[in-house]
Amino acid sequence: MVQKRFKRETCSLFHVKQTACDFFNVSRETKENTMIYFDNAATTYPKPEVVYRAMDKCMREYCANPGRSGHKLSVEAGRIVLETRELMAQLFNARKPDNIIFSLNATDALNTAIKGMINKGDHVITTSMEHNSVLRPLKQLESLGIETTIVQCSETGELDTTKLEKAVKSNTKLIVTTHASNVTGTIMPIKEIGELARQYNLRYVIDTAQTAGTYKIDVSELNVDVLTFTGHKGLMGPQGVGGFYIKDGVALRQMREGGTGSMSESLLQPELLPDKYESGTPNTPGIAGLAAGLGFIKEVGIENIKKHEEEITGYFLEKLAEIEDIIIYGPCKLENHAPVVSFNIINKTSSEVSFLLDNNFDIATRPGLHCAPLAHKTIGTIEQGAVRFSFGYYNTKDEIDVAVKALKSIVKEECC
Amino acid sequence: MVQKRFKRETCSLFHVKQTACDFFNVSRETKENTMIYFDNAATTYPKPEVVYRAMDKCMREYCANPGRSGHKLSVEAGRIVLETRELMAQLFNARKPDNIIFSLNATDALNTAIKGMINKGDHVITTSMEHNSVLRPLKQLESLGIETTIVQCSETGELDTTKLEKAVKSNTKLIVTTHASNVTGTIMPIKEIGELARQYNLRYVIDTAQTAGTYKIDVSELNVDVLTFTGHKGLMGPQGVGGFYIKDGVALRQMREGGTGSMSESLLQPELLPDKYESGTPNTPGIAGLAAGLGFIKEVGIENIKKHEEEITGYFLEKLAEIEDIIIYGPCKLENHAPVVSFNIINKTSSEVSFLLDNNFDIATRPGLHCAPLAHKTIGTIEQGAVRFSFGYYNTKDEIDVAVKALKSIVKEECC
Repeated sequence: MVQKRFKRETCSLFHVKQTACDFFNVSRETKENTMIYFDNAATTYPKPEVVYRAMDKCMREYCANPGRSGHKLSVEAGRIVLETRELMAQLFNARKPDNIIFSLNATDALNTAIKGMINKGDHVITTSMEHNSVLRPLKQLESLGIETTIVQCSETGELDTTKLEKAVKSNTKLIVTTHASNVTGTIMPIKEIGELARQYNLRYVIDTAQTAGTYKIDVSELNVDVLTFTGHKGLMGPQGVGGFYIKDGVALRQMREGGTGSMSESLLQPELLPDKYESGTPNTPGIAGLAAGLGFIKEVGIENIKKHEEEITGYFLEKLAEIEDIIIYGPCKLENHAPVVSFNIINKTSSEVSFLLDNNFDIATRPGLHCAPLAHKTIGTIEQGAVRFSFGYYNTKDEIDVAVKALKSIVKEECC
Repeated sequence: MVQKRFKRETCSLFHVKQTACDFFNVSRETKENTMIYFDNAATTYPKPEVVYRAMDKCMREYCANPGRSGHKLSVEAGRIVLETRELMAQLFNARKPDNIIFSLNATDALNTAIKGMINKGDHVITTSMEHNSVLRPLKQLESLGIETTIVQCSETGELDTTKLEKAVKSNTKLIVTTHASNVTGTIMPIKEIGELARQYNLRYVIDTAQTAGTYKIDVSELNVDVLTFTGHKGLMGPQGVGGFYIKDGVALRQMREGGTGSMSESLLQPELLPDKYESGTPNTPGIAGLAAGLGFIKEVGIENIKKHEEEITGYFLEKLAEIEDIIIYGPCKLENHAPVVSFNIINKTSSEVSFLLDNNFDIATRPGLHCAPLAHKTIGTIEQGAVRFSFGYYNTKDEIDVAVKALKSIVKEECC
């Protein structure tokens, strides 16, 4: 494996000899009270207090069936669903709340977006940095006569759009990419890809699992047909709610049919939005929690959230680069870097490092392949996996300092 | 429309002249503090206190990604998911927790169960009492070359299994029925249907949305291949969690692929259960709430819950039969009657009656078609819809008395 080291600005290979390694001496009792959570790319934690309260209030006070029965509790449940739809539409600058569809999670949304748009014989282009929520549906579709091209990204996870353009064929129907890699944090050039899609009259699906709530995403400035999101990461809501924005007029088959509370006399699925894609009782308490998360984001300001997480990420990358025997993956420029950092300690498995961080230092991180095997092949970590630190609004530089000390201790094997 | 009246035991048409109709005189203030909720077939409300607490505890204390990262919070989140799977398996007497799959809701589960099992050219048999969560997927499949037969039930919603047997053809692959109608409460003979399915080597899917948590359901005593459930009704959990039991060895395609936290190096969806059907981050707080609901059911005893709800249902049917100008739908025998009662007041739309109950008496019920149009055709209410009272564990006979007074007042038009 190529040994890569990160350095701000130049990104050249370099090696910093560690001059001092303090043993990270914290008693078990203290640690248990100061758990550090760096697994925000999986699920942000903790949530704003308003999220807990909104969910509990919904459950206790009005959690009847939204949009069905018509009594006061049902109307109140319907109101929170509509309010959340409006907040999501505002966040993405969508024209109407009805362009926002709620589902189980981003994977559910991506399956609808991909499978609902293409037909046998169609060709789909994606990248080597995608999550299995994109790759596995595409692989499944290959067995049904869909053709796919996976454009190889650089070893920092970056996409050369000229490669993507070269992959366009006469039967290409769809491009699907993430907005930011969940492994390296690499930001994809979604505006440029959207322009390419427009130029070649292709559909474009963007997965914002790692960016929504932290990065400003304006669908009116992007050429995007479907933009999928999840509620439990940057949007600060709970697990169990994801969904997508769909552009007006985009033909997309629904993945499931059922009761929608509308046109109940018909055995045909309604065509109106959002009902076409929202069959069955929705997750009202989850949606209420998401509304509170979105309210929190509005209050703090998405620019402030991004600024804070970018600072934390930059600070960690700087400190990490000072530790010996560390290999850092991902883009060189901080502006291309979502708050997700993957690295390894030479001669240690990622699992071992994450285990020690958790067990000995109460620092929660994620090792392994992060459900994105081709991303790991791209950065050269398919065997070792990588330790992933992913940051959220509640992380602090002090926590980074603690983690860096812990990593130094692990490198020196003083801790274990 | 045929005017039907309900009488216990005989179920003959009869007419009871109301001898006294007290005006239901409750001040607004009092009513607001004594809302009566009779919409439990849509979503049970309220939930046991333990459900609220379990969800809040999950959100506040350990809601990381289950089965992914390996740190303590992730392990704790994984533990509650497994514990809930075990409780569900116990409830249905399934052999292994891995036979229990979690999804968004019963509709999501039914779409997987139906679409994942049949192929072009197959024939499916269902009944005229099904919800749109069964009928709409089947209608959609018709356009893809699937044949369906809808067996007509009686005007009380009851199924004659000989009619079902007559519908079996050489290409019949699947029978799908509800366990109990969400309109009339009519219980289907699922044991007999299962035996027929076995006899003809057909698959059988049962929808338990209206029965799980109230009726003892033992999959070892039924010939059932997939049994779908929802968490937010009789199971006393929150909205946002449904799922299914799948019998060992049943071939069923998944509806979505994605990250499962397992076999991450592979682009192919894992075949192992439950991962094959559970892509993406699950609704951990919802599942934690469901676990608490299941714990509550165990503590109270499912027989006691059934007994209570049956008593309430019987009491309401008796009292309802005493009101003039009421048409009651559904089965005659209480043992064939889930705690769901539909009726109409002659010359009033169901919407008007439910509106008055809600607005003037703070009694939450559901009017209209209840997402089951063929059931309404079967009982003769496709134009008028029906007022549905559906009972839960927290309903009382006192509430029934209040509601009956309110109905009398509406019949006499003294209230509006």
